[in-house]
Amino acid sequence: MDRIPILKLGGTLIVTIQVDMHDRLALALEEDLTAMIARTGARGVLIEISALEIVDSFIGRMLVSIAAVSRVLDAETVLAGMRPAVAITLVELGLELTGIRTALNVERGMALLKARLAGDGAGYGSDRDGLED
Amino acid sequence: MDRIPILKLGGTLIVTIQVDMHDRLALALEEDLTAMIARTGARGVLIEISALEIVDSFIGRMLVSIAAVSRVLDAETVLAGMRPAVAITLVELGLELTGIRTALNVERGMALLKARLAGDGAGYGSDRDGLED
Repeated sequence: MDRIPILKLGGTLIVTIQVDMHDRLALALEEDLTAMIARTGARGVLIEISALEIVDSFIGRMLVSIAAVSRVLDAETVLAGMRPAVAITLVELGLELTGIRTALNVERGMALLKARLAGDGAGYGSDRDGLED
Repeated sequence: MDRIPILKLGGTLIVTIQVDMHDRLALALEEDLTAMIARTGARGVLIEISALEIVDSFIGRMLVSIAAVSRVLDAETVLAGMRPAVAITLVELGLELTGIRTALNVERGMALLKARLAGDGAGYGSDRDGLED
């Protein structure tokens, strides 16, 4: 497996991380995601990590990097499905997921992204889909 | 990785298959899916296979089995994201995915499931959520 599939659903891209991340895979995911944001004009990225038993500093950095790049492309990143044990470890390690919002599960994550999109009609990011209003 | 995560989104369960399936994993997926259909009352199962480079008879049987069990539990299964090469091989091998509908991508698959749910308000499967009408 050399690519993690990205599902497009409305204005949101959904990624489920199921395999151990390594350098090349992480880079490929970031590239694919940014290319897909640019192509589809997606405003939200939802990353589901319920399968991950460990979030170490490598994965943490990868997530922060994806979120930062996505933000530049005007898409918000939400992390969903984090296991409680992973959350505890993150806090203990002092790893901060700067710029990433979290949600308990995919449904709440989608609601979060939807609320954000509904809320910033007049915001800085709205010129992108200016055709609509 | 011993479990494939199942994402619940509204009345649909979404599964992305990214790893090579083996016996135990396929069985676990079927168990998890049926348990989740029973628990959540989901009416649709969407299986995304864009990462699969091969669908052999083992995976074919697994998909057919998941669809059959889901149908007994009153949930429809849609297969989304099949690669063109996989489709060609399926036809050449004469593998029939009995009882499984297919869609080009997740978005169309969701639309298919939505249309099915909207269309069978008076159908055989509607006694399950009889509270609503």
